[in-house]
Amino acid sequence: MTANGSRVRLNIGGTTFLTYDETLAQFPESKLANLSRCMDNYDDYTREYFFDRNPVLFGFILDAYRKEEIHLPGDICGPTFRKELEFWELSLSHVAPCCWEALYKSDDDVKTVNKLMDNYKKNASIRLTLDNHCSYRKRLWLFLDDPKSSYFAMAWVTFISLLVIVSTVAEMLITIPELGEEYTKSEKQAIDLILAEYNLDNRTTERVYSMKPNPYLTLTITCCHVILTFEFILTFIVCPTKKAYMFSVVRVAVFLGYILFWASFTIESNFSTMRKKEMVLVYLLCKYGTILKLARLFYLSKHIPALNIVGVTFSASISEFKILVFLLGILVCIFGYMMYATEFLDNDAMTSTFVAMYWALITLTTVGYGDMVPYTVAGHVVTSVCAVCGVIVLAMPIGIIASTFNKYYNFNSYVLTHVHLNSEVL
Amino acid sequence: MTANGSRVRLNIGGTTFLTYDETLAQFPESKLANLSRCMDNYDDYTREYFFDRNPVLFGFILDAYRKEEIHLPGDICGPTFRKELEFWELSLSHVAPCCWEALYKSDDDVKTVNKLMDNYKKNASIRLTLDNHCSYRKRLWLFLDDPKSSYFAMAWVTFISLLVIVSTVAEMLITIPELGEEYTKSEKQAIDLILAEYNLDNRTTERVYSMKPNPYLTLTITCCHVILTFEFILTFIVCPTKKAYMFSVVRVAVFLGYILFWASFTIESNFSTMRKKEMVLVYLLCKYGTILKLARLFYLSKHIPALNIVGVTFSASISEFKILVFLLGILVCIFGYMMYATEFLDNDAMTSTFVAMYWALITLTTVGYGDMVPYTVAGHVVTSVCAVCGVIVLAMPIGIIASTFNKYYNFNSYVLTHVHLNSEVL
Amino acid sequence: MTANGSRVRLNIGGTTFLTYDETLAQFPESKLANLSRCMDNYDDYTREYFFDRNPVLFGFILDAYRKEEIHLPGDICGPTFRKELEFWELSLSHVAPCCWEALYKSDDDVKTVNKLMDNYKKNASIRLTLDNHCSYRKRLWLFLDDPKSSYFAMAWVTFISLLVIVSTVAEMLITIPELGEEYTKSEKQAIDLILAEYNLDNRTTERVYSMKPNPYLTLTITCCHVILTFEFILTFIVCPTKKAYMFSVVRVAVFLGYILFWASFTIESNFSTMRKKEMVLVYLLCKYGTILKLARLFYLSKHIPALNIVGVTFSASISEFKILVFLLGILVCIFGYMMYATEFLDNDAMTSTFVAMYWALITLTTVGYGDMVPYTVAGHVVTSVCAVCGVIVLAMPIGIIASTFNKYYNFNSYVLTHVHLNSEVL
Amino acid sequence: MTANGSRVRLNIGGTTFLTYDETLAQFPESKLANLSRCMDNYDDYTREYFFDRNPVLFGFILDAYRKEEIHLPGDICGPTFRKELEFWELSLSHVAPCCWEALYKSDDDVKTVNKLMDNYKKNASIRLTLDNHCSYRKRLWLFLDDPKSSYFAMAWVTFISLLVIVSTVAEMLITIPELGEEYTKSEKQAIDLILAEYNLDNRTTERVYSMKPNPYLTLTITCCHVILTFEFILTFIVCPTKKAYMFSVVRVAVFLGYILFWASFTIESNFSTMRKKEMVLVYLLCKYGTILKLARLFYLSKHIPALNIVGVTFSASISEFKILVFLLGILVCIFGYMMYATEFLDNDAMTSTFVAMYWALITLTTVGYGDMVPYTVAGHVVTSVCAVCGVIVLAMPIGIIASTFNKYYNFNSYVLTHVHLNSEVL
Ligand SMILES: [K+]
Ligand SMILES: [K+]
Repeated sequence: MTANGSRVRLNIGGTTFLTYDETLAQFPESKLANLSRCMDNYDDYTREYFFDRNPVLFGFILDAYRKEEIHLPGDICGPTFRKELEFWELSLSHVAPCCWEALYKSDDDVKTVNKLMDNYKKNASIRLTLDNHCSYRKRLWLFLDDPKSSYFAMAWVTFISLLVIVSTVAEMLITIPELGEEYTKSEKQAIDLILAEYNLDNRTTERVYSMKPNPYLTLTITCCHVILTFEFILTFIVCPTKKAYMFSVVRVAVFLGYILFWASFTIESNFSTMRKKEMVLVYLLCKYGTILKLARLFYLSKHIPALNIVGVTFSASISEFKILVFLLGILVCIFGYMMYATEFLDNDAMTSTFVAMYWALITLTTVGYGDMVPYTVAGHVVTSVCAVCGVIVLAMPIGIIASTFNKYYNFNSYVLTHVHLNSEVL
Repeated sequence: MTANGSRVRLNIGGTTFLTYDETLAQFPESKLANLSRCMDNYDDYTREYFFDRNPVLFGFILDAYRKEEIHLPGDICGPTFRKELEFWELSLSHVAPCCWEALYKSDDDVKTVNKLMDNYKKNASIRLTLDNHCSYRKRLWLFLDDPKSSYFAMAWVTFISLLVIVSTVAEMLITIPELGEEYTKSEKQAIDLILAEYNLDNRTTERVYSMKPNPYLTLTITCCHVILTFEFILTFIVCPTKKAYMFSVVRVAVFLGYILFWASFTIESNFSTMRKKEMVLVYLLCKYGTILKLARLFYLSKHIPALNIVGVTFSASISEFKILVFLLGILVCIFGYMMYATEFLDNDAMTSTFVAMYWALITLTTVGYGDMVPYTVAGHVVTSVCAVCGVIVLAMPIGIIASTFNKYYNFNSYVLTHVHLNSEVL
Repeated sequence: MTANGSRVRLNIGGTTFLTYDETLAQFPESKLANLSRCMDNYDDYTREYFFDRNPVLFGFILDAYRKEEIHLPGDICGPTFRKELEFWELSLSHVAPCCWEALYKSDDDVKTVNKLMDNYKKNASIRLTLDNHCSYRKRLWLFLDDPKSSYFAMAWVTFISLLVIVSTVAEMLITIPELGEEYTKSEKQAIDLILAEYNLDNRTTERVYSMKPNPYLTLTITCCHVILTFEFILTFIVCPTKKAYMFSVVRVAVFLGYILFWASFTIESNFSTMRKKEMVLVYLLCKYGTILKLARLFYLSKHIPALNIVGVTFSASISEFKILVFLLGILVCIFGYMMYATEFLDNDAMTSTFVAMYWALITLTTVGYGDMVPYTVAGHVVTSVCAVCGVIVLAMPIGIIASTFNKYYNFNSYVLTHVHLNSEVL
Repeated sequence: MTANGSRVRLNIGGTTFLTYDETLAQFPESKLANLSRCMDNYDDYTREYFFDRNPVLFGFILDAYRKEEIHLPGDICGPTFRKELEFWELSLSHVAPCCWEALYKSDDDVKTVNKLMDNYKKNASIRLTLDNHCSYRKRLWLFLDDPKSSYFAMAWVTFISLLVIVSTVAEMLITIPELGEEYTKSEKQAIDLILAEYNLDNRTTERVYSMKPNPYLTLTITCCHVILTFEFILTFIVCPTKKAYMFSVVRVAVFLGYILFWASFTIESNFSTMRKKEMVLVYLLCKYGTILKLARLFYLSKHIPALNIVGVTFSASISEFKILVFLLGILVCIFGYMMYATEFLDNDAMTSTFVAMYWALITLTTVGYGDMVPYTVAGHVVTSVCAVCGVIVLAMPIGIIASTFNKYYNFNSYVLTHVHLNSEVL
């Protein structure tokens, strides 16, 4: 910084920069350290080197030579600055730690935008393969899948949505004992034969007796499922991209749900087949598996487009979920084991480590049912630590998941704006 | 970027920019690509084009030609930059994804400000229609509605607020059995006649017997309501903008509450009318509907102006609420159904899917009363997943609602500052 | 923006700006619209007006004339820009809504810094009044109050802290029945005489019998309090700023606690005085009031300086607390009243609206003890809404309180750095 | 700011700044106030002082002279600006409070980066000491510790991980009573002899009888521990940096766990030694201490690298934890004591202040088991305040801990990028 160094004059996009020769020697491998008067962009008359670059950004590039490390303003987008560094042949490793965030933070934004665009395109792709040829099959597909394609399609989607709601509600209503009927005497005897295989107590037997479903509800459910299954199969047949269809978790779950529903329906109809113990087990498994049909409810999300951001957030937060599950898992093991070791003699509720682990999870998530509580002083201490740990440890990954969702939610509106801007994107 | 391209000199608001012809050809449809020496703003002497624009922003406009996509610094407010892009005839679709946030984020701020200003103006509008003519009716309105208009108005509003508090507290005190009286024998017989229609057990009958309200409290409540109803009707009569009045949810609720209160008061006074079963039902419905009067408590918010930000936040978060309700709804259905299917034989508390859905909601919100708890190992697993899901899924939309409130809360102070700055805004 | 307007050349701190006459006419009341060649700072030779201002900020000032409203970059600190606007005679009301945040947000920072500095100075002020004269009394004060003044002072503060902990722990230990003693027969008779005035059931009488405190613990507590009371009085006597002392909530609470402790101690010693029913009541009130002594625990915070940020945050969040209390209050009233109206016949636990309000609060805060739970379907619905409302409504003000704390916590380190920088601040 | 001051011309890195003499006199101690024409960098021809500094930053340096305090843009990284201030001999104490955040905030980032780098280097250091010499011992160490060193090493680490999981699960399974066996009659007699020393009730005795562990599980556990202990000792022997090893909390815990496991194993094998009461106590303590082995589960975190960020966050949040513990501690004391004083006569559950403190903690963390609930009106009020306080007070430090984790989590990716950039860092 002595005055006896010779000055170098740089014209960057119209703005003149003046510095010393020796300042530019700071990073010897860079472009500025190897300027020579024979270069094309040296002007003998004005005695300056001309570069067609952004003068604002160059101010910070040149400053790096004076400060011996690269600093950048926090509002410059990282990729732009990285391109400048590349042009001026400066290594990223010279960037000072205080500016790493400025350099890299927008990479995360780009990742977010790409994820959202991918999701957008995936949803649209099935539809797009149609635009070229328009066979009947593809028109049918458009009708079944895209409510915006025509009024009839909208009516159809609304009708299917209603069927989904009606059948779900009916399946819930059917479990209310008051709406059920009494089994006839002959049916009770048939059931008794089945139950005889299992050593059930009276209470359970009573429960089973009281569960004859309401016939009107049964009819409603069956009708709904006939139509829904038909719609499901039809959609699969006409779908132009069967592969994308088959890898959708929701659709596979619904598919299994339907198969199990009709399987249990068949067994139910042939009541006599249930004599065999194995058949009853198969029936119960099928019946239990019909829960998978509930995945249909996600179909209704067609009416709330913002919901698929939740899905994208989940797929983008896999590493945070891993942390959450691992942390929770370790804490559950430690506190469960400690509580069992501390109270197994005094506490009838803590029958095994696994039960104590369930207690630990319910405490860590601050649900705290109170069906299992500590009785000893040591147990109180373990519980207190467990409750405080739960509040702290859960806050960390969940805070990140919530802010990821926030980011995706905000960026979704930017993406939608840009998708509308360039309709050629799709 | 070769040196043999011819240089173009641009004078942007006094600052000189220098670039190559071919750089400007990057976006052929833009203004800079179509510069011609015949233009008015070309200066033959200095050989530069003059534009009366911001040189700082132009630095980034010109840089877009060099980088082949538009980047902007994160601290520039989006609308300003969009105006520049428009002036220079560059399409928004050239903006790189890493800079979309910078471009669009202040739109959200503008939306926030507009919402707050609308809310501010709506509240002020009724008052403002007065300023021109000052009939007696309008003076009365000012007196009733705006405590800041005069000392008497302030006293009146305080008096009404006190009446609201007194009547609410009295209605709560009246439910305390210890403050009640015993029914006389003749009254009990009258009640018995009514109750005879219903098959109530002894406990409930005892309960009904013990509910004779304290006469002093009854008197207080009636007096308060006479004045409050009078004030309500008077306010409505003199209100200059009846439409705005009628669309206020709070006022309609209070109105219904008052009607139902006087209806139930009338029936109570004519005790004999309650002989009929239908009349008792009507009476109970009326009595229950008087809960609506509690909406009056929102009147007290006149004393805490910041409270209406809560209302604005709610109206601005409708799409987040949809997501919350939908997510909660699906989780409640799935976990409720699963729990019922898992434990219906073992758990007396899970009498139907709906009860299990209530359990699922209480678990998802981490309230966890513990009146219904799982008993089987499978039930414990379902509960654990449910508790963790609840913590994660609720965090996402609630995080956004909380940050929306934060934003509105901060902007409210800016809006108030500016409203005071330009008193002509209203 | 036509080229026929005459150009104006402005030299702002060395940088030349060029614009049209008519552009500057946009805000006629401002300084730039009223430039005249007779001004001192007009240079006839260069034909430019010179202003000694920041050229970077002026770029945005001038741009306001072109865009017809003022926009500012988000990274400029608001007060600086406001000074510029004042200098250029532009009204704040021309600032566009998208830039209000940039303009005002640092006001909040300044408020935060001021609050923290005030708090810092208040704590230091008592100490500072000493530096001039050094009488014995003031030296004693330094010794008692500032552990950093000497080794003996540090030892003394540590000794007092230990006494506080020992006496608090002893007062807790004394409540453990196992550590207590049996009353002698004569004592029991004396107690019986007292209890005879009250109609206590056997269980309570047993409880009272079992509460004779352990004599060693009683001795420890009394000794500790003798020293602590002595220290308290001494500190008060030598305190140079008695007023600041008397307005400290913590010190007043501790003072009352000591008075009540010695009052109850006196009554206890004169056992016979308790024959009178009023005396027993006075004794119980005194005993209960000794809880105030627990405020002493805040003395220990001398060892964790960051703790006073919690106090500053509380005093800075008063309006948020008002919102929280009001919202909670209304929700508690509404849900409590609704639950009582819904379940008062079916639910023995809901004995009055107040009990139901307690239930509502416990549900809204997601504590959910489960000692009162709904039994009817309508009750389940009310509870579900209540639980979800609680989660949403609490998130809003608490999010702000948490982020206020975050801000104060971060700024505290900046304030401490600057306090160390300029030791003359105090 | 009058025009009669003489102008000073400054050339800062090529950009010209123009100001008045008297403006520069604002901070007399600074470099700019003491410019003299005899300086080397004064150019007599152009009449300007040349400084080889960043002109953008200098704009704000010079503006400080005009505004009488230093303001800086929020996007400039603080260390860079501080270097400028140092160069221009301006004191940091002139920086206005509104810009303190801009000045200091990146210090926190630098601290974060350093902590993460330290953590990264510490983990890598043991591995790195190997690279020079490659004795058999060090090769063995690489094999045991670094799964990435070879396929066999990976297989070995996976095998050990599996053993950890298997032994942990087996130790949990062994507590399930259904998997256990009945003690033989002779064993029961032996146990009876031991139990005779303690006055256990029948229930506990039954419990002890039912706890004979399943022999297959016992065998599995013993085998696993033989291998794991062997691996542990071997790793310790060949470890080149024993000191780092000995200060790792996890490893010390596992070490103690193994010792206690083998101690209890020895006592169990020599059943007869347990006749002595002390021996039984030693045995129980050893058995309880084996919980420490659970720390092994943290070994599995080798497969989720992001997990060590949790550890770094904990070590970086120590002062926040202090605040949390202190606040919780005081609230627990106050509410526990108050609740005990309020309800000790009415509430059988509140047997002492310590029990009431446990209740307060369970309420403050919103777990709310419901095993202890208030019964009196005063108790309800205390509980309500306690629940609301809990929600507010916990939100403050936990919000900071969560945002610290967020910061570390984000910076970790930047650190990893840079570690890959300069492989010479390690
Ligand atoms: K609970
Ligand atoms: K809870």
